[in-house]
Amino acid sequence: SKYVRLKISLFTCSVVPQSENTKRYEPNWASIDSRPLPQWFDQAKFGIFLHWGVFSVPSFGNEWFWWNWKGTKNQAVVDFMKNNYPPDFTYPDFARQFTAELFQPNNWADLFKNAGAQYVVLTSKHHEGFTNWPSNVSWNWNSMDVGPHRDLVGELASSIRTRTKLKFGVYHSLFEWFNPQYVKDKASNFKSKSFVNSKTMPELYELVNKYKPDIVWSDGDFGPDVYWNSTEFLAWLYNNSPVKDHVVTNDRWGTGIRCHHGGFYSCSDRYSPGVLQPHKWENCMTIDRYSWGYRRNANIQDFLTIEEIIATFASTISCGGNMLMNVGPTKYGMIAPVFQDRLMEFGSWLKVNGEAVYFSTPWRAQNDSVTPKIWYTQKSLAVYAFVLAWPSDNMLELGSPVVTSSSTVSMLGWNGPSIEWHQKSVQTNKGIIIALPNVPAVKLPCKWAWVLKLENFT
Amino acid sequence: SKYVRLKISLFTCSVVPQSENTKRYEPNWASIDSRPLPQWFDQAKFGIFLHWGVFSVPSFGNEWFWWNWKGTKNQAVVDFMKNNYPPDFTYPDFARQFTAELFQPNNWADLFKNAGAQYVVLTSKHHEGFTNWPSNVSWNWNSMDVGPHRDLVGELASSIRTRTKLKFGVYHSLFEWFNPQYVKDKASNFKSKSFVNSKTMPELYELVNKYKPDIVWSDGDFGPDVYWNSTEFLAWLYNNSPVKDHVVTNDRWGTGIRCHHGGFYSCSDRYSPGVLQPHKWENCMTIDRYSWGYRRNANIQDFLTIEEIIATFASTISCGGNMLMNVGPTKYGMIAPVFQDRLMEFGSWLKVNGEAVYFSTPWRAQNDSVTPKIWYTQKSLAVYAFVLAWPSDNMLELGSPVVTSSSTVSMLGWNGPSIEWHQKSVQTNKGIIIALPNVPAVKLPCKWAWVLKLENFT
Amino acid sequence: SKYVRLKISLFTCSVVPQSENTKRYEPNWASIDSRPLPQWFDQAKFGIFLHWGVFSVPSFGNEWFWWNWKGTKNQAVVDFMKNNYPPDFTYPDFARQFTAELFQPNNWADLFKNAGAQYVVLTSKHHEGFTNWPSNVSWNWNSMDVGPHRDLVGELASSIRTRTKLKFGVYHSLFEWFNPQYVKDKASNFKSKSFVNSKTMPELYELVNKYKPDIVWSDGDFGPDVYWNSTEFLAWLYNNSPVKDHVVTNDRWGTGIRCHHGGFYSCSDRYSPGVLQPHKWENCMTIDRYSWGYRRNANIQDFLTIEEIIATFASTISCGGNMLMNVGPTKYGMIAPVFQDRLMEFGSWLKVNGEAVYFSTPWRAQNDSVTPKIWYTQKSLAVYAFVLAWPSDNMLELGSPVVTSSSTVSMLGWNGPSIEWHQKSVQTNKGIIIALPNVPAVKLPCKWAWVLKLENFT
Amino acid sequence: SKYVRLKISLFTCSVVPQSENTKRYEPNWASIDSRPLPQWFDQAKFGIFLHWGVFSVPSFGNEWFWWNWKGTKNQAVVDFMKNNYPPDFTYPDFARQFTAELFQPNNWADLFKNAGAQYVVLTSKHHEGFTNWPSNVSWNWNSMDVGPHRDLVGELASSIRTRTKLKFGVYHSLFEWFNPQYVKDKASNFKSKSFVNSKTMPELYELVNKYKPDIVWSDGDFGPDVYWNSTEFLAWLYNNSPVKDHVVTNDRWGTGIRCHHGGFYSCSDRYSPGVLQPHKWENCMTIDRYSWGYRRNANIQDFLTIEEIIATFASTISCGGNMLMNVGPTKYGMIAPVFQDRLMEFGSWLKVNGEAVYFSTPWRAQNDSVTPKIWYTQKSLAVYAFVLAWPSDNMLELGSPVVTSSSTVSMLGWNGPSIEWHQKSVQTNKGIIIALPNVPAVKLPCKWAWVLKLENFT
Repeated sequence: SKYVRLKISLFTCSVVPQSENTKRYEPNWASIDSRPLPQWFDQAKFGIFLHWGVFSVPSFGNEWFWWNWKGTKNQAVVDFMKNNYPPDFTYPDFARQFTAELFQPNNWADLFKNAGAQYVVLTSKHHEGFTNWPSNVSWNWNSMDVGPHRDLVGELASSIRTRTKLKFGVYHSLFEWFNPQYVKDKASNFKSKSFVNSKTMPELYELVNKYKPDIVWSDGDFGPDVYWNSTEFLAWLYNNSPVKDHVVTNDRWGTGIRCHHGGFYSCSDRYSPGVLQPHKWENCMTIDRYSWGYRRNANIQDFLTIEEIIATFASTISCGGNMLMNVGPTKYGMIAPVFQDRLMEFGSWLKVNGEAVYFSTPWRAQNDSVTPKIWYTQKSLAVYAFVLAWPSDNMLELGSPVVTSSSTVSMLGWNGPSIEWHQKSVQTNKGIIIALPNVPAVKLPCKWAWVLKLENFT
Repeated sequence: SKYVRLKISLFTCSVVPQSENTKRYEPNWASIDSRPLPQWFDQAKFGIFLHWGVFSVPSFGNEWFWWNWKGTKNQAVVDFMKNNYPPDFTYPDFARQFTAELFQPNNWADLFKNAGAQYVVLTSKHHEGFTNWPSNVSWNWNSMDVGPHRDLVGELASSIRTRTKLKFGVYHSLFEWFNPQYVKDKASNFKSKSFVNSKTMPELYELVNKYKPDIVWSDGDFGPDVYWNSTEFLAWLYNNSPVKDHVVTNDRWGTGIRCHHGGFYSCSDRYSPGVLQPHKWENCMTIDRYSWGYRRNANIQDFLTIEEIIATFASTISCGGNMLMNVGPTKYGMIAPVFQDRLMEFGSWLKVNGEAVYFSTPWRAQNDSVTPKIWYTQKSLAVYAFVLAWPSDNMLELGSPVVTSSSTVSMLGWNGPSIEWHQKSVQTNKGIIIALPNVPAVKLPCKWAWVLKLENFT
Repeated sequence: SKYVRLKISLFTCSVVPQSENTKRYEPNWASIDSRPLPQWFDQAKFGIFLHWGVFSVPSFGNEWFWWNWKGTKNQAVVDFMKNNYPPDFTYPDFARQFTAELFQPNNWADLFKNAGAQYVVLTSKHHEGFTNWPSNVSWNWNSMDVGPHRDLVGELASSIRTRTKLKFGVYHSLFEWFNPQYVKDKASNFKSKSFVNSKTMPELYELVNKYKPDIVWSDGDFGPDVYWNSTEFLAWLYNNSPVKDHVVTNDRWGTGIRCHHGGFYSCSDRYSPGVLQPHKWENCMTIDRYSWGYRRNANIQDFLTIEEIIATFASTISCGGNMLMNVGPTKYGMIAPVFQDRLMEFGSWLKVNGEAVYFSTPWRAQNDSVTPKIWYTQKSLAVYAFVLAWPSDNMLELGSPVVTSSSTVSMLGWNGPSIEWHQKSVQTNKGIIIALPNVPAVKLPCKWAWVLKLENFT
Repeated sequence: SKYVRLKISLFTCSVVPQSENTKRYEPNWASIDSRPLPQWFDQAKFGIFLHWGVFSVPSFGNEWFWWNWKGTKNQAVVDFMKNNYPPDFTYPDFARQFTAELFQPNNWADLFKNAGAQYVVLTSKHHEGFTNWPSNVSWNWNSMDVGPHRDLVGELASSIRTRTKLKFGVYHSLFEWFNPQYVKDKASNFKSKSFVNSKTMPELYELVNKYKPDIVWSDGDFGPDVYWNSTEFLAWLYNNSPVKDHVVTNDRWGTGIRCHHGGFYSCSDRYSPGVLQPHKWENCMTIDRYSWGYRRNANIQDFLTIEEIIATFASTISCGGNMLMNVGPTKYGMIAPVFQDRLMEFGSWLKVNGEAVYFSTPWRAQNDSVTPKIWYTQKSLAVYAFVLAWPSDNMLELGSPVVTSSSTVSMLGWNGPSIEWHQKSVQTNKGIIIALPNVPAVKLPCKWAWVLKLENFT
């Protein structure tokens, strides 16, 4: 449909062949925003987000531990420190215990691949300022000099690429809570820029030149974009960097910029608008409901169920988003079994239903007009309905599809008898009623969220 | 039936009222073995086993870490130490890091209660010799002097009892790998007994007098029972201890004693004979297939699925056993989410099916004569069939039940229409065919292992 | 003189040739006390005492750190812990930091040899109970299992003997402040003896059999000697131990025993009666005025000057004592330079004046009857006067010597012109006046405490 | 004499009243060098140097530990690390153990005051780059963020000034061995200056503005002065800084600059030319012969004796230098007793002989023409002869003084009879022979290095 074509063009169709990509971008948002988003990102749909850092050592509360302790003075965190550490212990003192001794990046890569992810984004540096690579401008506050004594970014990038061919991106926080240079610049109302010049910018350039990330995932945008030199960096990234042709960025490039400028929109954490968006976006969300970093004090109730994950995912891709699902590795370098569990479950589901996911685009309707918990995507001539809840009588009504003479209905992964269905009403070809297979659960292609493939509907 | 009554008497029916329990036991196996097993144990069916100790610090390989390192010199363990610790680091040096700072025994108690357990057994001391209580004879090698700086046994005992009314037991290893007193006694071919006299016996008496355990779960029986003073201790336990009337013990009281003498039989780890046993027994098994202690290097595939757990459980109780399911807490005192997950799943299953479990006894048949993966228990006039696998056509044949004129079939937790069934053959009243409810999975009372209640069958 | 012979006999002359030493001692004080003290001890005069243990880690206050903290709750120690350690830190947690990584026992042996010492006594175990050897009954609370991971007693014993031929002794504390076995026995008013039987006695026998010490230096005698089994141990030590012929012990073997029974008398710390004693005794004293263990917070004023050390020594040996001078090594195994300094100075003094020291006996007078700060010893036909303070006019009056016709006066180490002297008075041959060499200090044989040799005086 | 006046003018006499000190200095050496040295420095003669940093933690070898380990791979250091630390331990990991928990700056100040020092210079940052103050540009690699968690520079500066009125200076290393910014700049042959701009210069300005040091003691001048921006900084320091009127600097401001430009000359470590210098200089030397940082593995022989110290001092001030004597504090913040000992001895000597030291100037002769080990200073009309070795016959010949009719000779601190002396020869008034007091050492005013005051000699 015309509508569908329009949507597609919004995020992907203006991409031109790379050989012709000779356009130069200027350091202003109008020019930056004019760059078409490389196609691969929209096609990928699902990525893994990793929050790993010194916060993984106390691993208590969440990854804002330092700020909770010394910034807002959260009582639980203050008490935790008081009860368990010497009076003068500081956050940097935790770094030595960030050991990563069990970190085997190939195992991580295999896990993410099996989960069905198409890209992986690692915190190269969170707001604590600790760099997970041997940054030239973060001496003795990086993963090579203290703690792991390894180049975490480099090792993971290598495994992700050479072993699994997934895309690799770097999360990078512009600001750092307690970096005295930032504190000083902020106190000047961002007139002085010593922090940006001596830390942020050198690091971003170093990261891109050294690790050639497919994604530069910016965060910590507390300060004006002019302070951060954002457009200058992006112009370089798009014009001259070694990844200029395929790199993707997000939108967190300065106060007020999110959801308005940049590459794809990440807007706010766990952003999930529930309606189709005119601009490519990403829903970064967490398996642990309350934290991005690993929390030793998490209980099982704190983790999304696989049903919740799939529901979020279906809603997200139906509305044009990607889902970047966060996992918090432990300080010793393992991904805790509960995360592995969700990833493996999701991967098993995607093995059956990936056809409706990868390379799909939003359909004209996102959720069904009659039955709740139904989300749609489309690809080629097929429309896919994600059925999050199995109807208790096996009968499913879909209000949005319009029947044609050649319409067919099938279920992804189902090899049994044809699915029976009929038009809801002879008065209109809108709406159908489907008789889902009446079989024990064990015979169904998956345990959660079955996908119906509607061909030749409009 | 006569058979049933026989079975019951084997483990429980000879228990006499406590006020009359004035029999004195002599320190020999014949006398010790003559004591009836307190009823509560057989009725309880399901307990939680906890392996927690200094081995939870390296948390690598399994709880035999020290032995693997210095005894058998397992290469992976040797390498782990070489790569991550100073050359002269010793196992006792780990104790300082056994912090338990997040240990909240009430949370554990609630979790075990919700899992449906009726008793909890904690390693008061494993083969490493480190006591989880301030032992009088393990100075500076106990949880109060180093590491947690807490009385782990005492705190958990208190929470388990006052908060949840579950029974509380103590695991206790007779031997200690590297205790020089034990090594010396062993070298004397167990002629000298300085280890038993100065460590093992004082600790067992102290444990019983101080914590009044409902279970004394002995292990590490490397040495003759006469060396260990086992019958003397048990005679005291049964005659004079503060728990003499209700305490339960197992059978690991010396080389050659297991499966032959003592209280219930624990025989070997993960003991699951699959046929009815003439003596009350317990299947101690692990959620982590490869370790009793928490392993940081475990992956999700290493954990039993809930289906495997229930299958093991059904087989165990059908054959007269209890299941003691092991959980390995972390050094910081949390039970990792993957364990919580299995416990909560199992608890949700027991909430529906507990009627067929607690207070049940074995039936005349343990597993069905026709259909595999069916296990039976009985209670009062009902027989319970545990259906581990749902038949793909919803039709289930049971070969063992014999129909009477008043026979009925129902499913625990099912509130829908009556379950239809019929005799398999008019020639014989043995064997029935049941039409299980033909409904979507979501409408069934549980997700795994449905229990049929057969009333008035013989 | 008769007097002199008497004195000698008091401590040494009843020693019989070893081949005839077939007397058996009974486990009672009368018999134990009847054993002659082996000659070597009285002849040796000067030994080094070493206090080294876990207390060397906090190294704050003194070696009673644990007791000061948890026993008397000394405010400075409580504050030190509160300000520098986590709230739940315990004393045993310090053990890991007792590293001894710079301990080179040969260097220690050379230092003590150069200091002129004839024997060395090391704390094999202080009141904290931590053994500096791999005790069979102090598992995981000894220097092999935790901390140094070395056999400190064994290594030092070996160096002392094979490299320097000095005698080697072990200090051993009978009691242990916080050992629960001791605490329990004490609470029973020393009726129960589990501590003595399981710890004290096994350790003493092990020490003697394994290290064959020349001295067993007992301490920590809080409890009756019958509780400690003292006479039984000593009878074994004297009758059957591998060191029975030459071993020396002191007198701290139970409440009320000190200064009354045993081998030489050590009475109280820094015991220095100033008058001749009828029984061989030892003055154990410290270079650091306030501590036996190394104190990191010591200042230079806290250390005895070499003048004070020599004065103490002269008084001690004049009155029949030995001096056991204490040095507190650091947790890393070095003897701090300030201690080395005093030892080297004392050694340089003994190189000149050792003739008046080793093998000497008390004279009939201990200090001079006229001039203060003069102490006497004798050997063969010579009497030695230790002149602690040089007279400002170089003229020294000695009131005690009685002149004979062949009397001569010289100064040890002085090679200049003969020392001139004359009788004080023609009326009496008692008392002389000596003209000390009138030369610049640099030409004198030593810098402190010059020794005059008086021959053929009576 | 004319000569004397000349000397004085060389370093001090061109100082003009501060109110008139309005001269502006240009950022070139000619202009910088034209600044007169503030008078106080030459008058002070004696300062204390303190080397304290993360190197005080391993405290092994010397303060170049990091370089010895990872730069030159010194075998002893490599072995020390291999034997005592995990394989991946890094130098920054030591920082946590730089505890300074016993650091009481008032005690240090009192000690230095009692030692007779007039100024104290602390390593604000050594070549390791760790700043002993909370530098704005050394985040998490400074004494507030890790280790001591205190502002060591600030605390000591405050105590030194408010309690003792001594001058306070900061040592500062321009380069940092392993700072990646420096390494990069060096690799560019010092074409790029990112290290200087982002670290060295901000730190120097911050130090001066925040702590207002009386001395900026530069070191680590590996790189051209134009690279270091040295003259720009010094012009600011002299023209605009808060210490412009009284601050003193040295000469280590770039390759080839030492001994040629800057403030006083420090040339090389332990610089002691032994002849009069035309430019004010300083002899920075160490009490520990082999190290500036505290070495736990030092023995007593490794420390200068007080005689050596005084000899060095006499030679130094006779030739126009100051002596900056180094002390290496321990990681826990105490100054080891052996250092206290030397300082107290030196202080006791200066109490007697300070008249010949402070405010003195070189005489026309530095050492005597006839007798060795005699050094001269002068003040007002007096000439002072430092007699390092007492003549064995008490007779001292001085060849350099020329007698006048009013010449007198006395000894500082001597209250006894007048010192007798006479001309050496009637032929010439050059040279005298002095009869030093013939008294026991204890009656002399000091133990080492007596000072004769020669009045009205020429």
